[in-house]
Amino acid sequence: MFKNNDFIYIEYTARVKDTGEIVDTTNEEEAKKANIYDETRSYGPRLVILGENRLIKGLEEALYNFNLNEEKTIEIPPEKAYGERDNNKIRIVPLGELRRQGITATPNKVLRLADGNLAVIRSVSGGRVVLDLNHPLAGRTLVYTVKVVKVLENARDKIFALIERRFSSKYSNSFNVELDDSKKNVRITVPKELYLLEDLQIGIYSLAYEIINYVLPEYTVEFVQQYSKTTFSSS
Amino acid sequence: MFKNNDFIYIEYTARVKDTGEIVDTTNEEEAKKANIYDETRSYGPRLVILGENRLIKGLEEALYNFNLNEEKTIEIPPEKAYGERDNNKIRIVPLGELRRQGITATPNKVLRLADGNLAVIRSVSGGRVVLDLNHPLAGRTLVYTVKVVKVLENARDKIFALIERRFSSKYSNSFNVELDDSKKNVRITVPKELYLLEDLQIGIYSLAYEIINYVLPEYTVEFVQQYSKTTFSSS
Repeated sequence: MFKNNDFIYIEYTARVKDTGEIVDTTNEEEAKKANIYDETRSYGPRLVILGENRLIKGLEEALYNFNLNEEKTIEIPPEKAYGERDNNKIRIVPLGELRRQGITATPNKVLRLADGNLAVIRSVSGGRVVLDLNHPLAGRTLVYTVKVVKVLENARDKIFALIERRFSSKYSNSFNVELDDSKKNVRITVPKELYLLEDLQIGIYSLAYEIINYVLPEYTVEFVQQYSKTTFSSS
Repeated sequence: MFKNNDFIYIEYTARVKDTGEIVDTTNEEEAKKANIYDETRSYGPRLVILGENRLIKGLEEALYNFNLNEEKTIEIPPEKAYGERDNNKIRIVPLGELRRQGITATPNKVLRLADGNLAVIRSVSGGRVVLDLNHPLAGRTLVYTVKVVKVLENARDKIFALIERRFSSKYSNSFNVELDDSKKNVRITVPKELYLLEDLQIGIYSLAYEIINYVLPEYTVEFVQQYSKTTFSSS
């Protein structure tokens, strides 16, 4: 049994109930077998902070009732996954309009629209294309096989987990974290390799927010950058 | 007499020797009278770090031989100001080409070209425009009336001068600077109002470079951001 703000790591594979089709998985081999391998994401156990609401509702709710190393298969209805289908989200557009955008219209093709949403081409005929703007998994009941493989217990591990999620794991080990419980202070030294990273400041800001929100609400979180002559001579 | 890395503040007015025309000044009233007032810059004494080479060569060289509160008038030949004129930088372009760029060509008009350089329209006739890509002050001997009005003596004042030059003076007083000479360490706390400033990180990086380069070469410069629950509740 877990509670709000617990940091757990899960492994899972998600299937559409009707078809058995795998639509998401943390297992790299499974992803490749199911032809949904995405080289831009990292596979392996995934960090979940309970209450952060980054997962579909039904999965996150269910996780509170797991124990460490427990594996369960859970069924998630559409209203706790990607919503019911909405027939108002079916649009008919002229084939020429898609052609002008360089899109070859073939049935079942998934498009990313200008607003970032996904659409599925349902049919193409007579110069008309039926576009379905419902999420591709809307209306589907999903079946997740989930296992909680790790639970983080102390603040230090949680802070490193957040650092690793925010910055590449290549850099996370170079962060230095000093916890002072008597002063209620965390001092985090940022590695020099990140000083010129474009999104460093928004990374620091978000990380501070997450640490205070999920790990140490009463602490001051200090981010430190240390410069010396060698910082500039080596770059 | 000043030396490399001295921090001095100067007031000056620069004139073209031939015409007496004022081309630059730190005095707001003079700027307005001379019709060169620029509301995007700040007037008043200007920080100069000797050796930083932000000024025209002849002016910076001359400043080494000033004393505090001394005012002198110095003559700077083109080769130590904006260079000699180069006749290869005269171009003839069709009037239509400028029109297409929305430019009304009138003699003596100064244009900013796509590469950021300035050009002066020397003449317009028969559908042709003579463009002069020399710096508007190239070939001119300049006469500067300069006074050194302040010299910074201690590291703390120099650091604040650099902070003020880098960030708006509205924020510079909110920086906290702790100098520890025994540990050869400077700890600079960044004010919360700047945490979401777009260029904060490049500002921190540049400031660290300047402090180490011009003020405390043997020190470690720490920049600290402090977050707590209130950081996020107030924004």
